[in-house]
Order: sequence, then C-alpha cells, then structure tokens
Amino acid sequence: MVMCHSWCYLLLPPTFAYKLSPQGRPKACHVLHLSLNIPDAMDFDHQKQEQGRFGFCENVNARVSEFVSNVRKLGRDDPRRVVHSLKVGLALTLVSLLYYCQPLYDSFGVSAMWAVITVVLVFEFSAGATLGKGVMRGLATLLAAALAVGAHHLANLSGHIGEPILLGFFVFLQAVVFTFARFYPTIKARYDYGSVIFILTFSFISVSGYRDDEILKLAYLRLSTILIGGSTCIVISILVFPVWAGEELHNLIASNMDKLACFLQGFGHVYFEMAEDGVSKRDKSFLQGHTSVLNSKNNEENLANFARWEPGHGRFRFRHPWKQYLKIGARTRRCAYRIESLNGHLNPQAKPEIPSKIRETCSEMSLECGRALKELALAIKTMVKPFAAHVHIENSKSAAENLNSLLQSSGLLGDNMDVLQLVPVATIVSLLIDVVKCTEEIAESVHELASMVNFEAVEPTVSPEKPETGQSEPMKSSDDVNSPSIIIVIDEPSLENETSDSKSRA
Amino acid sequence: MVMCHSWCYLLLPPTFAYKLSPQGRPKACHVLHLSLNIPDAMDFDHQKQEQGRFGFCENVNARVSEFVSNVRKLGRDDPRRVVHSLKVGLALTLVSLLYYCQPLYDSFGVSAMWAVITVVLVFEFSAGATLGKGVMRGLATLLAAALAVGAHHLANLSGHIGEPILLGFFVFLQAVVFTFARFYPTIKARYDYGSVIFILTFSFISVSGYRDDEILKLAYLRLSTILIGGSTCIVISILVFPVWAGEELHNLIASNMDKLACFLQGFGHVYFEMAEDGVSKRDKSFLQGHTSVLNSKNNEENLANFARWEPGHGRFRFRHPWKQYLKIGARTRRCAYRIESLNGHLNPQAKPEIPSKIRETCSEMSLECGRALKELALAIKTMVKPFAAHVHIENSKSAAENLNSLLQSSGLLGDNMDVLQLVPVATIVSLLIDVVKCTEEIAESVHELASMVNFEAVEPTVSPEKPETGQSEPMKSSDDVNSPSIIIVIDEPSLENETSDSKSRA
Repeated sequence: MVMCHSWCYLLLPPTFAYKLSPQGRPKACHVLHLSLNIPDAMDFDHQKQEQGRFGFCENVNARVSEFVSNVRKLGRDDPRRVVHSLKVGLALTLVSLLYYCQPLYDSFGVSAMWAVITVVLVFEFSAGATLGKGVMRGLATLLAAALAVGAHHLANLSGHIGEPILLGFFVFLQAVVFTFARFYPTIKARYDYGSVIFILTFSFISVSGYRDDEILKLAYLRLSTILIGGSTCIVISILVFPVWAGEELHNLIASNMDKLACFLQGFGHVYFEMAEDGVSKRDKSFLQGHTSVLNSKNNEENLANFARWEPGHGRFRFRHPWKQYLKIGARTRRCAYRIESLNGHLNPQAKPEIPSKIRETCSEMSLECGRALKELALAIKTMVKPFAAHVHIENSKSAAENLNSLLQSSGLLGDNMDVLQLVPVATIVSLLIDVVKCTEEIAESVHELASMVNFEAVEPTVSPEKPETGQSEPMKSSDDVNSPSIIIVIDEPSLENETSDSKSRA
Repeated sequence: MVMCHSWCYLLLPPTFAYKLSPQGRPKACHVLHLSLNIPDAMDFDHQKQEQGRFGFCENVNARVSEFVSNVRKLGRDDPRRVVHSLKVGLALTLVSLLYYCQPLYDSFGVSAMWAVITVVLVFEFSAGATLGKGVMRGLATLLAAALAVGAHHLANLSGHIGEPILLGFFVFLQAVVFTFARFYPTIKARYDYGSVIFILTFSFISVSGYRDDEILKLAYLRLSTILIGGSTCIVISILVFPVWAGEELHNLIASNMDKLACFLQGFGHVYFEMAEDGVSKRDKSFLQGHTSVLNSKNNEENLANFARWEPGHGRFRFRHPWKQYLKIGARTRRCAYRIESLNGHLNPQAKPEIPSKIRETCSEMSLECGRALKELALAIKTMVKPFAAHVHIENSKSAAENLNSLLQSSGLLGDNMDVLQLVPVATIVSLLIDVVKCTEEIAESVHELASMVNFEAVEPTVSPEKPETGQSEPMKSSDDVNSPSIIIVIDEPSLENETSDSKSRA
C-alpha cells in the first residue's frame, strides 16, 4: 500500500504537495489551492482528477490485497492444494529429464515432449482421477496406435494417389464415430477422456505415418513416452501425500448429513425460541449450510467415478460400494429439499403463536432428527455402526405420534387460535414429519452401507431400548453429555472445510 | 438376432436338435431327451448348459439391440449430435491436408500435428465453448511461448551447467504457480483450459529449446499451427449449422419453467380430482418432470460461461445479459424445491377429505400458477413481453386470499373434519402459497430480463384488468382458447426435447 502511494506521489507534478493521512489516504489539499489561486471549477476538476488518480491506485491496491488474501485463504483452507501444485511441478521437472539427460534423449528424442504433455493433461487433484485418466490415456493410445498402423498398411496397398484419400477417409470415419460415441451417456460419464485420446492418437499416427516411413517406431515412441509420463503422474499422485477421491466422497456425504443435522438442531432451538444448550439466538449461520447440499449431485457423481479407479487405501478396499454413497447422497438431498421448504417458513416477523405443547413436541422432533443425522454422519465418518441413530429416529417418530394425539385433543383450538393461525403450524408439523421419514430412509441406506462394508460394531454402554409409542421423554444415547461413548465425537469444523474444498474442486 | 441364433446353432454338437419358437427363443427340447435317454440329473445339467449358451447368446443379442436402439435414439432425439460429429470429422480431415499437400508440408513439417491435436481438443458441441477454448488456447500459447523464449535466453546466459538447472527451475515454478491458480474460483470457472495450455506450452517450448537451437522457429510453428487448427474449428463451428450455447441456455430456462408449469397444472387437476380440460387422471408422467430442474444448476452455469464467448446471433446480441438467465434459473429452482415438497404429499391413498370449496380454490391457485409459469416460459421462448402472466399471478394471489377468508369462516370446521385432517390440507395450502410467492419472484426477474433486452411488446387484444381482491372468477388471458393472441402458442414437446438434450450434453 505504502509502495503504491509513493509511486503515485512520484507521478504527480512537482508543484503539487499532498498530505497523506495516517491511513495513507490523501486528505483534501487546502494548502495547494490557496497557494495557486485556481478558480473553483478548475479546482474541483483538479481535485477530481487527483482523487481519480488516487482512487484508481487505491482500487488497484484494494483488489490486489483482496486477491492476495483470497489466495492465502485458498491455501490455508486446504493445504493439499499447495502440495498438489508442488507435486505437479515435481512430475513435470522429472519428465523433462528426458530432454536434459543425454542417454535418455538419445533413446526418445523429440518424442519426450509427449511425456511432458501427458503430465500436464493427466495429473489431477485426486489419485483416482489421475489413475483413471492415466490408464485411459495409455489404453486408448495403445488401441488407437494399433488401429492406425493397420489403417496405414491398408492405405499403403492402394497406391500413391489412393493412400492419402483412404487415410483421410479413415480419419474422418473414426472422428465421426468416436465423437458421436461421446454423446452416449455411459461413455460420456466414464470414458470421455479415453475417446478424445483415441481420436487424437489415431489421427496423429495415421496422418504422420503418411510422411514418416517408420510408423511402427512412431507409434512405439508415442506409446512409451505416454507410459513414462502417465506412470510418473500415477506414482507421484499415489505415493506423495495422496488425495483419495473415495475418501473425499466419504467425507462429503458425512458432512452433508452433518449440515442438515445442524439446520434441524438450529431450527429446533431458534424457531421454537428455546435457546437451550447455549445456542445463541442470533447465531443463525447454520441455517444456510444446507444450501450447498442441494447442488452436490454432480460433485458426488464425479467423485464416485474417480473413486472406482482407486486401489484399496486406508479403510477402503478396492471395489468399495461407492454406488451406495450416491444412494445415501440422493436421499440426503431429498431431505435437504424438505429442509429448504422449512427454511422458507423461518420468518421471525410472521411467527405464529403456537401452543406451548405443540411447540415443545415440534422442537423435539426437529432436535431428535438432527441428533439422528449427526449420529449417522458420525457413523459414516468413523465407520462405526450407527446404534444411537435408531433411538433418535424412534424418539422423533414418537414425538410425531404425540403431536397427532395433541392435535386430536379437542381442547387445543380454544378461543386463542383460529384455523388461519393453524396453517403455518400445520405446515411445519407436516414438513417435519416428512423430514422424519427422509431421515429414516437415510438411516436405512446407511445401515445397508454398514452391512456391506462391515462397519465396526461399538455397542453403546447404555443399551438403547425401543421406546413405547407415545412416550414423550427422549431416550438417552451416545451424544448425551454423560454417556461414556461421547469419546468418539469428532471435530466438526474440519467436516465443513473438507466439503467446501471438494466442492470447489469438482 | 437371427444371425446370432444361427451362429449358436452351428456351435452345438450335430446330435442336438433345437426347435426355435417363432420369436427365435429355444423351446425346451423334449425330442432330444426322449431319443437319448439321458438320466434326469444329467439331462437337467445339459439343459442348463444349453440354456446358458442360448442365454448368453440372447443376453449379448439383447444388449446389442438395446445399444443400437439407444444409439438411434441419441441421434433421433437431437440430430445436431450427428451433425456435430460430421463437423469434427470435416475439420480433422481439413487440417490433415497440412500433411497431404506438399507445399503446406514444406512450410509446417511435423508441426502440422499441433493443428490436428488442436482440432481434437478444441472442437466442442456449442459454438461458444469452441470459441472460448480456441481463443484461450491461442492466447495462452502466445503468452507462454513469449515467456518460454525469454526464460530460454535467460537460462542461456548461465553457462552449460547452469542452463538445464535454471530451465528446470522455471518449469517447476510456473507449473506450481499455474496449477495453484487453477484452484482460484474465477480462474477455475472461466480460464481453466487456458491455464493448462499455458503450463503445457511453457514447458514444451522451454524444454524443447534446450535441444533445438531454433527456439523462435519452434515457438512460431507451434503458434501458427495452433492458430490454423483453432480457426478451422471456430469457422466450421460457427458457419456450419451452429449450435449456440446462449440459445441452449435460453431454451433450457424456458423449458424448466414449462416443466414446473406442467406439474402445477397437473397437480391442480389430479390431486383435486378435477379431470377437466381433457387431462386423463392416469397420465401422471408430468409429475416427474420437475426433478430434472432440481439439478440443472451446473448445466446452466456452464452454458452461461460458454455463451459469454459467442458473437451476436439470431435474437441475441453480443453481451446479452446471460447472468440474468442464471438469476431466473436460481429462482425457478427455488420454486422446484417447493414443488418437490408438494410432490411428497401427492399420495392418492392417504388423500384427505377436503371441503369442496377449499379444494376448488387450491386447484385454482395451482392452475393459475401453472398458467403464469407457462406464460413466462412462452414469453422467454418467443421474446415477447409477458403481459398475461401478471393476470394469472394476480388470480392465484386472489385465490390465496379467498382461501384465507374461507379458512377463517367458522362454518368450515364442522362435525366432518377434525384438526388432524386439516394438517395435510394446511400443508398443501401453505406450500402452494410459497409457490405463488416463488412464481411472483420468477415473473419479476423475467420482467427485468424483458426490459434489459427489450422484449417485443405484443399487447393481448383483450386487455387484462387487475382483479379485485377476493374475486373468485379467474380472468381471461392469452392462453384461453377463445383469445385472439393464442397464435403465439408454440409447440411444447420440442421444449422438452431440447432440455433433455442440453442436459445430457452438459
């Protein structure tokens, strides 16, 4: 900031004397106007000009400092981004050794640039994406090179004039077929990159082969340098601080559930004005968390596609049921739609007067659903069977039944409440019941996942019993403060961070 | 199918005689078992084996025919896909002339392959995407080539040993910086491809320059061949049956609205059991149309990013306010969330008994909202000011007010209805009121768009008047059959098609 100001200062004509305030902003320069006796209009113009000059400078300053702070935040939010950039730099420097080392250059020559190009195009943030692209590039090159060599030989047979015509026809034909194939949904989702590389290699080798007599050597050089580049990427991506798409997906699904849980717990407290558990009434930021869940479909699908390529790592074996995560994700999103509708009714100005009994029961439903989702998120995150979630869901269901009997009791619609006042209450009740149903569905799919991959069974010390119907007292479970199994509660802020990162990367 | 069966037939031992049913499926072969007297267990095994063989064959057959019909459907749904494939083939064949024509080959040599690679990587379905990628590739190559030549000269100064070290350091540094830059949201959204090409060109030219003394020539050849490839793509993409991303976005937004309108009109008829206007009660397919709207965010943002690159075309000038479309899209999606919640209540088994007056008013609200959205979709599609939408929104608002007074009237909660029955009704009422609000917001943003780009003002011949509050008779507007302005109604099925296409392509 200071540098830029002194630079501006140097640009000004020498007769102009400016005072800089302690904050570095120029003050209106009265001294100058008095000494030069410039008429008012001109004076104003000059002032504007100078202010403009300073304004521009400040603008640039502000933008640069905003940019710098954004860049810092990018790195601070997820240091793996910095590590990834260093990994790409390392891989690129390694493959450029093919040029710098004489023995290597002797064997590959200018074809070494394919290794450089492969590194730039194949190296992705997650190991799965890098593996997928690398393997696809290798296979597509192999297949296309073989076909191109065949096409070249075929074209060779047709004489000097026929050769370029036939080659051109082959190039045209394969480009049309594979470009059209890229519209096919399965190919588009999984093998899009492979199709592009096929078209590229086939065209390149069959066309180059027309000029280069050693077409087999050309194909071999392209294939071997691509294999060198691809394997460099894959090795560095997997061995040096790997980022696993599977783990990202796993964390994203858990954190999405956690966001819905935060909303429901906040809704239980804020809407029904019960600031218990130390939640401040003004802290309503958690009510926006669910919006990112609404649009997470693409991200989840991409991560699942990448995860399919990854070998076993950490708690995930090869062929981990990633599809099940998509199912859980879809159900979480359906719940988020209901929550978005609920959110539309969170208007403190038009808050209806709700009979206290209904308020309590609604709050309980919301809180219990929130607790259940928190348990489920935690269960996924730690890969431990979600015993306690069942209890919370039963609690919320019994609260819903309580609500039914409360609404049925004739005393409710007294003099204080007419039907019109009941409408918003009924809506919230109804949406909450929907949310309970959605939560149950989510729990079901999490249980399916738990049995598919054998989640660890850590029984809570206080064994939960099924509550009787209509029971109003919520049952104790692992997230209550005095329960011994509280030890598995993990740091939630990190959950938040991971999602926002993986989102921005999708 | 017949071919495959005869092939299977040939594979069987000669003693086996099979009967093919008229559908080509093998029948259980009783003749065979009688003549060979095979014991039952073996017989069963053989049967299974043969069935397995036929089963496999049929399986392959079924898959192939399914694939073929899918491919046909792909082309039939959107013939532009076939045209695009042909365009890519044409462009690739054109640039491969750089190899086949001696004079062209004399000037470019093997560098001609960059033109081939550029075509494969740059040619996209929409003109905007092709233009964006082409221009970015050109600019990034120019900038990176200039910097790489500079870096090469700098490294040259540092002697024989220092040169590769300094070059390697430069390559490492730019790879790290630009890979990290790709995480920056603005760069990621708009200049991701440019960054990749920058890294690629810089590495390629600075590293190749170490071996090739004519680094300037190398940079010039790469740049010129990339320009040839890029401009071929851009020219073909724009001149031969162009597909405009802007038009796609325009149609997508209109068709998304149309889908919501279909839902609301269907909901008005089906849920409230009023099969008027010839809508069959069983035809409930339109109730699923809105699900694709829920996840259209990514698609819309991509199309808007591509559309920014496009020159003026048809009814759209350069710098058409594409951002406004995103705003309308976001509001449409918000409405879709409410509709998804409404959809959860469309359970014919648990349909509550609703007093007929409420039912009628709810139905009217839903129908009027649907009509308003249809008008708005039509207005966008035809770029004509949406006069009639206002009328329908006012109608739905007055229906909502009617509903209020209906609910307030004490006679409603008679002996036939208790509070519990009221809950689902109240929820639907409340969600419909939300939908009315959302529709109003959508209308507002469409009006903003209409004033930004000067939509044509085709006043309806029957000038709509503002209805009085509480008026129950809906006002006439342009979508009523007898109105003269019915002429602007366009074919709706095409709307549906366009969206599904552009979605699958996103």
